[in-house]
Amino acid sequence: MATFTILGAGMMGTAFCVPLADRGHRVHLVGTHLDRAIIESLQDRNFHPTLDLEIPEGIIFHPIEELQQPGQESDWFVIGVNSLGVDWAAQQLLSLVKPGSHILFLTKGLAAQNGDLQILPEVFRSRFPPSLGKSLHLYALGGPSIAGELARRHPTSVVMASRDNGRLEELAGLVQTPFYHVHTTADIIGLEFCVALKNFYSVGVGLAQAEGERPFAASNSPNVHNPAASIFAQSMTEMVYLAGVYSGFQETTTGLAGAGDLYVTCQGGRNSRFGRFLAMGHALKEVREERMKGETIEGYEVALAIGETLRSLIHRGRLDAKQLPLMAFLLDVMLDEKPAEIPWSRLHG
Amino acid sequence: MATFTILGAGMMGTAFCVPLADRGHRVHLVGTHLDRAIIESLQDRNFHPTLDLEIPEGIIFHPIEELQQPGQESDWFVIGVNSLGVDWAAQQLLSLVKPGSHILFLTKGLAAQNGDLQILPEVFRSRFPPSLGKSLHLYALGGPSIAGELARRHPTSVVMASRDNGRLEELAGLVQTPFYHVHTTADIIGLEFCVALKNFYSVGVGLAQAEGERPFAASNSPNVHNPAASIFAQSMTEMVYLAGVYSGFQETTTGLAGAGDLYVTCQGGRNSRFGRFLAMGHALKEVREERMKGETIEGYEVALAIGETLRSLIHRGRLDAKQLPLMAFLLDVMLDEKPAEIPWSRLHG
Repeated sequence: MATFTILGAGMMGTAFCVPLADRGHRVHLVGTHLDRAIIESLQDRNFHPTLDLEIPEGIIFHPIEELQQPGQESDWFVIGVNSLGVDWAAQQLLSLVKPGSHILFLTKGLAAQNGDLQILPEVFRSRFPPSLGKSLHLYALGGPSIAGELARRHPTSVVMASRDNGRLEELAGLVQTPFYHVHTTADIIGLEFCVALKNFYSVGVGLAQAEGERPFAASNSPNVHNPAASIFAQSMTEMVYLAGVYSGFQETTTGLAGAGDLYVTCQGGRNSRFGRFLAMGHALKEVREERMKGETIEGYEVALAIGETLRSLIHRGRLDAKQLPLMAFLLDVMLDEKPAEIPWSRLHG
Repeated sequence: MATFTILGAGMMGTAFCVPLADRGHRVHLVGTHLDRAIIESLQDRNFHPTLDLEIPEGIIFHPIEELQQPGQESDWFVIGVNSLGVDWAAQQLLSLVKPGSHILFLTKGLAAQNGDLQILPEVFRSRFPPSLGKSLHLYALGGPSIAGELARRHPTSVVMASRDNGRLEELAGLVQTPFYHVHTTADIIGLEFCVALKNFYSVGVGLAQAEGERPFAASNSPNVHNPAASIFAQSMTEMVYLAGVYSGFQETTTGLAGAGDLYVTCQGGRNSRFGRFLAMGHALKEVREERMKGETIEGYEVALAIGETLRSLIHRGRLDAKQLPLMAFLLDVMLDEKPAEIPWSRLHG
């Protein structure tokens, strides 16, 4: 039995507790300051309001003020905050992590750092004093894992990555259950590129899904899939290229973290809905402030976080514009509010 | 303007005539002996019953008995019969093709030949006298292209392949329209592997889609996507491996012909429905003879056509069993009627 402290009681942080609890680990779920109502509901009656589910017995719930005590007794930290909360998470853990601490990231995203792209675990590491930062063992998780399905114990396959794989197999083994299949890879870079980019590109798939909903669409063809599939393929092609530039492995992108997670994201969810609204002619501002008010659109957040850096990397020749026509189009749409007319002839070049 | 003879008036053969007619080509659509009712309806009122659509003016419709005249005046032949009809198509064209004739395959599949796998255009070639066969220019088409959507002019992106690319660019250029985007590759092998295997593997995705419909599934989670996405990723991984063994290019599998077509096939259709029935516990015989009576399930046809050859190739060491756990499972289910219980722990190894 091991002791885990999960920081962030959102859907994924909480869902991840289910296999841990099933395995009999000691699990502390610590809410952020945004999770107060969730923690109260969990303490009260084990019910998670956004997962709409009763969580198994045995997990210990804490508000953020109680982080110190479980943090001090934990073997493993798990970061389940959203992608904008990584700096905040580092601050919270500053007094708790020790040389050689083990930290798993459920949080997904890429950041701009020093004019280049950086994976979030490394951004986190850079927030600690150098010698302490260097000693930390960082792990990341990718693959198609809708939180509500994991929490309900549907078969879910993920891949866990770490550059230093000292205890990677051990951690994967601690988490694995009959419904939660945890595979391992050394390719943490490829994995983090995939988990961030799949959100970004699924906005494009959503744009194309709207083809069947447009006014000029034939009335007897409500479900149109060819356009979305074309964008799916171009997304895969560009993800393989991008991860490859940063030394990610091709098999990561064609496996669970890339193809699998892009597939699941395109089956629904906010990113593709966002894309569909844009394709139907709604202005970005209207979608953000009215139709999807208050909703976090991860693919759009990725565009905001790294879009200008991507353009600059293309401008400087680090990335090849010819390999990234869909990315360029999506950045034009999301950053400059250009029309959401898919440039079909520029794709698949 | 060029003259085309399309052999086979099924959904894809007919849909392919739409961009040709839009481009002003002279188009002869010749039905097989199975297409008599379709040809009569088309001659009568331009209506295709299974596409449920009125076809543009200008296409000339023929029963099979009239093949000779259009065949003699055509620059390009297009084969649109089903995958079991390739030998028949070769017989029909025996007196019509000349040295150096150009033949495009819409027909998809892999065949077993001399104990190994062979792509259908090469099976077709082998049915002609050697010197004539060798002189034929063969082209194939892949990518996400649901016939009804193409026929309704929804944006559709495909890739056309030929090993000898003498007139590949010319043919792609003749077919291209503002809604039909035709890209080219020399990788005809990778393309044919993808278009056949995507049907086979989408049976597996269908099996996994049934997870949410099983009796033990939580009642408040009707749509379950993690299991299908996991199988999608494993399918991509095995397709990259398989095409690679036969010298297919990785970018074909991660592009339109592989990822794109697998995606579109998993959005619905008979292969995944077949898989879902099996996963819900119906016997293969019952699904074939009752629930899906009379329907062609292409993924199952692939298993029948090449399943034993695949097993033999694994047995002989030409294919690595460790790379193909999902294929082995699907063959057990489809050829030996083994239980359709997905072997999760053997995947993503």
